[in-house]
Amino acid sequence: MSEILRQQIEKITPLTDKEFEYILSHFTRKKIKKHQYLLQEGEAVQNDYFVTKGLLKAYYVNQDGKEHIMQFAMEDWWITDYQAYFNETNATLNIDCIEASEVLCLSLRNREKLCADMHKIEHFFRKKSNAGYVALQRRILSLLNSNAKERYEQLLQQYPLLFQRVPKTLIASYLGVSRETLSRLSS
Amino acid sequence: MSEILRQQIEKITPLTDKEFEYILSHFTRKKIKKHQYLLQEGEAVQNDYFVTKGLLKAYYVNQDGKEHIMQFAMEDWWITDYQAYFNETNATLNIDCIEASEVLCLSLRNREKLCADMHKIEHFFRKKSNAGYVALQRRILSLLNSNAKERYEQLLQQYPLLFQRVPKTLIASYLGVSRETLSRLSS
Repeated sequence: MSEILRQQIEKITPLTDKEFEYILSHFTRKKIKKHQYLLQEGEAVQNDYFVTKGLLKAYYVNQDGKEHIMQFAMEDWWITDYQAYFNETNATLNIDCIEASEVLCLSLRNREKLCADMHKIEHFFRKKSNAGYVALQRRILSLLNSNAKERYEQLLQQYPLLFQRVPKTLIASYLGVSRETLSRLSS
Repeated sequence: MSEILRQQIEKITPLTDKEFEYILSHFTRKKIKKHQYLLQEGEAVQNDYFVTKGLLKAYYVNQDGKEHIMQFAMEDWWITDYQAYFNETNATLNIDCIEASEVLCLSLRNREKLCADMHKIEHFFRKKSNAGYVALQRRILSLLNSNAKERYEQLLQQYPLLFQRVPKTLIASYLGVSRETLSRLSS
């Protein structure tokens, strides 16, 4: 299962078997059942999670109990409460499993150690972070500029595989539109 | 003027005079007058810009001619069309000066060269990118969850100095609210 992590890193920088073994030794494995929590609001955030199997969502619950989805993650994606992870504060987000999942867990301490030990891993994480930054800017522009129909179509085009696996209610919550609006658009 | 770049890097990693001189040799300087463009939609994106003086905005103009502000940047901030810069495509954003500005320009080639030459600069840019990622996630949550009044108050609290320098019309465009709504909130 860890082979997809190696493939992701090697899209950015080549690795020897020994290097990958060393990198992998900084991760731990975790299995989570469907609907089980990986992280709950208020807890310390121990890890960033690389998904090797399954589908998860990170979301904020507001004072009225309404869910706003920050991100989804399926195989080959990373997920955590990044604000809390990087700043070592408690989580404001929740993460749970839409499908039974398996993840590789990387603590902040191990991430920093790997980056200090191996310049090429610092390079890998910088490149991933840059790509993530650009994806979030696109989402902001979509929230500012597009109507519900356009946002839905952009998501469908950008992440066709994700779309097939995520229930409509959750897509609506990610897009910031009502379930009714989305049903009208997708019917 | 370049001293504030050194200060920013040294918040993350210490530098010798010689190292900073080497880093700075990868930047060029540019002065831009008030209302002048630093970047226009459709152009190739040559640089990331570190602001040493002044105030700029990066914005998208939609098909109806409406402006959506992606970001502001004042002294000690970075600004460009990151999607186009990192992917070496043409700009979809415009950048112009709210106040007369001076910037240090870093091409993607020089950025990658610096990061490859100096592990500590790769570290610096990774840390900056992580912080930027977290800031964008906060903005997304604010767009999904908060009403106009809350967004305005969050901005005021997060960036009090910026707020004093940016006209209300532009703040409204950044927050995705109408000028009228903002006037009602800030009066």
